[in-house]
Order: sequence, then structure tokens, then C-alpha cells
Amino acid sequence: MDPETRVFRNGAIAIEHDTIKAIGHSDQILAEFSSHEQLIDLRGQLILPGFINTHVHTSQQLGRGIADDVDLLTWLHRRIWPYESNMTEEDSFISTLLCGIELIHSGVTCFAEAGGQHVAGMARAVEVLGLRACLAESIMDSGDGLPANWAGRTTEQCIQSQKELYKKYHNTADGRIRIWLGIRQIMNATEFLLAQTRDTAKELQTGIHMHVAEIPYENQHVANTRGVDQGTVAYLEKIEFLDDNLLAAHTVWVNQDEVCSLSKARVKVSHCPAAAMRMLGFAPIREMLDAGVCVSLGTDGAPSNNRMSIVDEMYLASLINKGREVFSKGITDPTALPAETILRMATINGAKSVLWDKEIGSLEVGKKADMIVVNPSFWSMVPLHDCISSLVYCMRSENIQSVMCNGQWIMKDHKILTLDESEVISMAKRAAAELMKRAGIDIPSRMNIL
Amino acid sequence: MDPETRVFRNGAIAIEHDTIKAIGHSDQILAEFSSHEQLIDLRGQLILPGFINTHVHTSQQLGRGIADDVDLLTWLHRRIWPYESNMTEEDSFISTLLCGIELIHSGVTCFAEAGGQHVAGMARAVEVLGLRACLAESIMDSGDGLPANWAGRTTEQCIQSQKELYKKYHNTADGRIRIWLGIRQIMNATEFLLAQTRDTAKELQTGIHMHVAEIPYENQHVANTRGVDQGTVAYLEKIEFLDDNLLAAHTVWVNQDEVCSLSKARVKVSHCPAAAMRMLGFAPIREMLDAGVCVSLGTDGAPSNNRMSIVDEMYLASLINKGREVFSKGITDPTALPAETILRMATINGAKSVLWDKEIGSLEVGKKADMIVVNPSFWSMVPLHDCISSLVYCMRSENIQSVMCNGQWIMKDHKILTLDESEVISMAKRAAAELMKRAGIDIPSRMNIL
Repeated sequence: MDPETRVFRNGAIAIEHDTIKAIGHSDQILAEFSSHEQLIDLRGQLILPGFINTHVHTSQQLGRGIADDVDLLTWLHRRIWPYESNMTEEDSFISTLLCGIELIHSGVTCFAEAGGQHVAGMARAVEVLGLRACLAESIMDSGDGLPANWAGRTTEQCIQSQKELYKKYHNTADGRIRIWLGIRQIMNATEFLLAQTRDTAKELQTGIHMHVAEIPYENQHVANTRGVDQGTVAYLEKIEFLDDNLLAAHTVWVNQDEVCSLSKARVKVSHCPAAAMRMLGFAPIREMLDAGVCVSLGTDGAPSNNRMSIVDEMYLASLINKGREVFSKGITDPTALPAETILRMATINGAKSVLWDKEIGSLEVGKKADMIVVNPSFWSMVPLHDCISSLVYCMRSENIQSVMCNGQWIMKDHKILTLDESEVISMAKRAAAELMKRAGIDIPSRMNIL
Repeated sequence: MDPETRVFRNGAIAIEHDTIKAIGHSDQILAEFSSHEQLIDLRGQLILPGFINTHVHTSQQLGRGIADDVDLLTWLHRRIWPYESNMTEEDSFISTLLCGIELIHSGVTCFAEAGGQHVAGMARAVEVLGLRACLAESIMDSGDGLPANWAGRTTEQCIQSQKELYKKYHNTADGRIRIWLGIRQIMNATEFLLAQTRDTAKELQTGIHMHVAEIPYENQHVANTRGVDQGTVAYLEKIEFLDDNLLAAHTVWVNQDEVCSLSKARVKVSHCPAAAMRMLGFAPIREMLDAGVCVSLGTDGAPSNNRMSIVDEMYLASLINKGREVFSKGITDPTALPAETILRMATINGAKSVLWDKEIGSLEVGKKADMIVVNPSFWSMVPLHDCISSLVYCMRSENIQSVMCNGQWIMKDHKILTLDESEVISMAKRAAAELMKRAGIDIPSRMNIL
């Protein structure tokens, strides 16, 4: 994933503390670092940069399965908002731990929180998990039908709250945590909030994470109420909100002009194929890549996808973007988004999307030691005729053997080292059941349960 | 999956030899079968009918990764045909063993071979694996560009060969193996072959497995050469080939009239979402289900999908068929193909598709004991708010703990009992490398490999 797309057969990496000191062929590295303290033999395995999940709602993990097969309005008003507005900080902590377990097992070393509840709880969990993260609060200062405890929040309170989070948590946990600003979505944001967010992000030199152009109705609403012909992207361009520190999630309903605007402003796009197929539609990802937009991959939250695995999203991103060509060309294009492009989306493009590519996203000298060890000698990847494509199309979480973040092993031989998985699972079951009761969410039965 | 869609909380099953003797609440079953020989406590786990993969090319497993990101012509003429036409019976045996390992880990107890090389090798592997299967030979009696060792085969030889396979292998391996007739696809089948196949299937009382309406070009070709206005389905109807023993794979490019023809003739359709997205297009599955067509799920072969997991296909079938509604309705429909429908496709509809529903596809008294044990207390399925939807949207192969086929445990606690996995993996690596050399298949490198 370096600029020369180098892959070393019989390679080796020298790591000191949290940093890659050297990378190359093993004989050369072994000679150079003969006085190493520890030598780990990973013969027959593949080493890759850790994956970066650029759109995940960690505080929604306890809500996995609460909103399957329901229409969007039921999804939002009767499931997600009641769930989120009834969360405690402890719920957010447990939810992020549970989500983190799934992220680590699927090879993620860094994620961008989409904007959730109780950043304090998330930060505590990220500290424990050993992951790297850009955390953001769910921010809304307007909109219809909001739960009572959210509705009264002013724009100033939204900005103030985030400034405090920044002060308290930015660059904590050995530099693994960064605080970003959040905008939930355009229909819950006044123009004043957007302007304040844009200016505050510049002042703090941080990023903004926002859901953009998710459904056709959003664009219509923007066109009807904000004095633009097209939708959200056109409006954001008009108010000078599009910039290289904006991470636009989903970005499904955009036309070719808007793709050009995104490219020109160097906006980053997080493509979440599972959630898109299930709820939103097919984003013009090939067109974005052709136009030079930096596109990365996200899982979205558990109630929008259920699986929180960037490994599966790589597979899906490949399938759906090959298939989607049917609608313009009349046939699929199996050559669209080849494996090496997808792998880049999950690594170096992810790093650029979270404004962290000087330190992560590829295995290069001077970068942080965020990496994963993949065992390809397992039923899911045998035989290995095309190593790069097999990583994208065959690899499963079962193949991900070990994960290192910031120079520390956080998973070794499938065992997470930073916490007790079964303990978190027990805590999560209890917390989820109580939260559902508190939120008054009732899920109808699908079968004849006796 | 029984006609009353019953789910027993605190359930139990009594099994004698290969057959389910009773099913119900555990207190009742335990009282009735107090003199049981063996009692297995599966508290906290879920028991389901084994999944049925209705379209898989077991002899293509050694070719996983040989044809990624290439156009269809390269795929067929430069990769798949050279690969398949150079296989030995031993290759087919090893390939089927390797594929079977993946099938078992993903909860499959029965599969329908799509039509492959060396049924003798497959049958030997199925006998070892302990799975249930409908095996078929890849049959072509015409067509352009066929490899030399295939091109000379007459219609009579095609039929004769299959009759011999039927005689030798049908109802072998304790009744786990059935022999079906194969038709590769319409462009490689004369009208005489189709008529002979139809009549032979009636005579032997068995099924026919055929790729149908895969690409727009196929329909055009049929319209141009076979005297019908529409495509393959219309032509097959005209020659009275459509019947309830036809398992039509993919069936992507069909219009509403053809959907009605399929329904009227009680043809079964195997929907293979991954392969469809990647190479073929979006089949009108919701329309087929609405019209009463029995639709089941298949993985297709490794070089068309890479992952041979019906668990992943359930997830994909849900996502893509919700998303596909965008193209008729302008927005996705998250309520389309709900989880219970998908689960039915993978079980009882699968059983109907392989003409075996009197014995498998649901857990009912008198049916064969083909079942799987799912552990939901694992990071991928926690919390479990909606059990049925979680089986479809969250479950991963990691959750599948044990598999029983025909009353025998073939996997227990993730360990396959019928063979040595690592031995098969070693054999497969060797055989695959040699086959690639023999077939002269060379895969270009995607990155700068040093």
C-alpha cells in the first residue's frame, strides 16, 4: 500500500516501540537488526496494514437486530432513536467494547465513529481495546420528531459539548484517540450549526464526520428548503462546507456534477456497501474513483448491517460495484473495482479519509506499527492462486490470526489480549436487555414460537 | 421450517439411527424417551435443519482465484475451460473434499452439484465427507471454442455416460448420493440433447440441473437461432423442457411472462447472489417468490464467487434483493425478502429444489436427521434481539458449532470428524499447482512483487 505498491515475498519488518523502523526482504532486515530483542517467525503468513473502518456506530452495537426488515421510518423513529436516546454512558462503553471485539477479529486497527452517544464511554472503551479511533458525537440542533431529551439542544450547546470532548480526549490513549466533529445529517442541522462546525473544525484542525445524501427524500427536502436546485452536496458546496477534512458517509444519491464537486474539494467518501444495499441504494463508487475521489470502506452500525466486518465489506464492495454496471451498460462488469483497488480502499484510502495517512494505512518506515497477520492456509483461502484477490474475495475473519495496533499485539492467534471476550459478551447481553426495556422497544415475533 | 413454522424454546429432538423420531419441548421428549442411549445437552444453542446449497461446482474448488476481475470471455475460454478440461478424477476427488470442508463449516448438509468433471471422483469424496448430494456431470454436445478433448462428444455419448453414472452411484453411500442429469447451458446443448435429457430424467425419475438465462447474450443467441421471440425460458417452454424436476440455476434474465412460465411448470430456481452480482446481474427473485416459484440458494463455483458459504449467501440474498427494488421503485425496500423467507430458501425450498423434501429441509418426525447446531453466544451474534433475523444477517461460519447428516455427526465443535482437514489442504495445494501448470493457466501479478 506504499506509493510503489510493493509486496515483499519472504519479507520482514523491524518495529521499535510503536514505529516501523525498517521493511524489506528478511535476510536484509535480519542482518541489519541482528541485535533485536524479539524475533517473531510468521513464515507462511501474510502481513498487511491494519484495516480502517471509516464509518461505524460503536454505540449502536447493543442494538444489533432491533430493526431488521422494517421500513426506514420505523427504523429511525421506533427503533434507533428510542434506543439511542435511552443509552447511558455505561451502555456506550459496553457497546463500544463489544463492537471493538468484532472490529479486531476482522482486522481493523483504526475506525471512525460515525457520531454516537456518550463519547466519554467510547473513549474509555477504545483505551481498553487498544484500537486507534476518531470519535465523534451525534450532533443535531433541529429536525422533526426528535426524542424529548434531545430536542432542546441549541447550536451553541452542540459546539460547546464537542469542544469540551476535544479538550478532554483528543490525542489521549498514547495518541490513539482523536476527536472529530459530528453532523448527524442535513435534515437535523441548521445552516448556523454547519457554519459553526466548519469553523470550529478549522480552529481545532480536526475532521468532520457527516451522513451525506443517503436517500432521495433528503435531496428533495434540501432542494425544497435550502434554496438549491440539486441536493445535499450542492447545498454544502454553496455554504463552503465541502473541504478536505469532511468525511462524507454513504453519499449514495449524487449526480456527476456533485461527484466533481466532491473531487474538487477533496472530500473523502466512506462507502458502506451492506447498509447501502439494504437501506439506501447504489452509490456511484466507480465514477467517484474515476474522478479521483478518495473512497474508503465502512460497516455502518449494527442495526443497518448486522455484520461489523470490514472483511465482508471488501467482498461486498467488489460484488456490488461489478453488478451495478448492469444499470448503465446492460451487463455487469467483472473488471470493475479490481481487488487491488478494494484493498487500497480498506487501508491507505481509509487512512487518508481519517486524516491520519502520515502515520497509518501502509507499512512504511516511520509509520506506526498497525498491522494484521493473515493465515491463508485455511479452508477459506486454499488454494492461493492470486494472493491479492484472495485477500479481498476469499478471506474471512477466520483467516485473521493476529492484530497489532500502535506497536502492541491486541490479538494473537485469534485471542484478544486487551480484554476478556466472554465477560464483555455477558455484560453486553445484560445491558442490551435492560436498554430495550427502558426504551420500550418491542420486536414482533417472526415465527410460531412455542 | 415445518408447515406451521414452529420454533420450540427449550426444545428437544429424539433421533434413532438416521431418522427424527420425535420433536417438541424437552420435558415431554425426555419423559417419552427416558431409556435413550445417549443424551446430548445443547442448552443455549440453536438447532436448525441443515442448509442446502442448490448450485455448487465442487470440481471447481481447486480453481478458486484463477479468474478474478476478468471479463466473461477470458473467464470461460482462458481460465475455466482449460482448468476443467485438464482435471483428472483424482483432482475432482480432492476438489470436492476441499469444497466439502467449506460446505460443512458453513452448515450445509446437502448440495446439488451444478455439473462438473469426473462424477466418480465427486461420489468418492461425498462418501468420505458424509454429506448428502445430487451429483451431475457437465454435459455439452455442441458449441464454439470447446477444448479439443470435449469437442468430439456426441449426444448419445452424453446420455449414455449419465445413465452409467446413475446405475453405478444413484442411491449409494447409505442413500446419501443421487445422480441427476446435467445440461451445462443452452448454447452448448442441441435440441436433441435437451429432448433426450428430458425423457431420460422421466425414465430414471430424477432431476435435471441446468444454467438458465445467465446473460443477455444467451437470450439473444436463443432468439436468433431457436425460433422464439424471447430467450431461453421461452424456448425451453416451447420444447416442453420446463417441468417440476428442472433446477434452473441463476435464471437472471427473465421477464414477467417467463416468471409465470417457471411458476406454472413448477420449475425450481437456484438463486446465487454473489455470482449474480459479480458476473450476471440481478434476478427478479421477489417477483419469482410472489409468483409462487420455489427459489433456493446456491454459492455457484469458487471461481465465480470465491466464498462457498451458504451463510454468506443468505446475508447477500437479503441485502441485494432489498437494494434491487431501487430500480423499480426509486428507493430500496428494507422489508423485501424478510429473514424468515431467506431461511426458508436455504432449507425447505432447498429440499424441494433437489426433490428431497419428503426426507430433508425441516426438522419433522420421520425426516432424516440432517441438522446443525448454532452457538449464538459469540461476538458475531450478540445481542440476540431477533433470533430468526440474527440467523440470517449476523450468523457467520464461526457460529456453526456442529453438523449432523443422516444421523451422523460430521462436524462437532468446529472439528470435521470425517476427514483430516490439514491433510486435505496439503493435497489440494499440490493438486491445484500441478493442474494449473498442466492447463497452462498463468495469472498476471497485480502488484509490484519483490
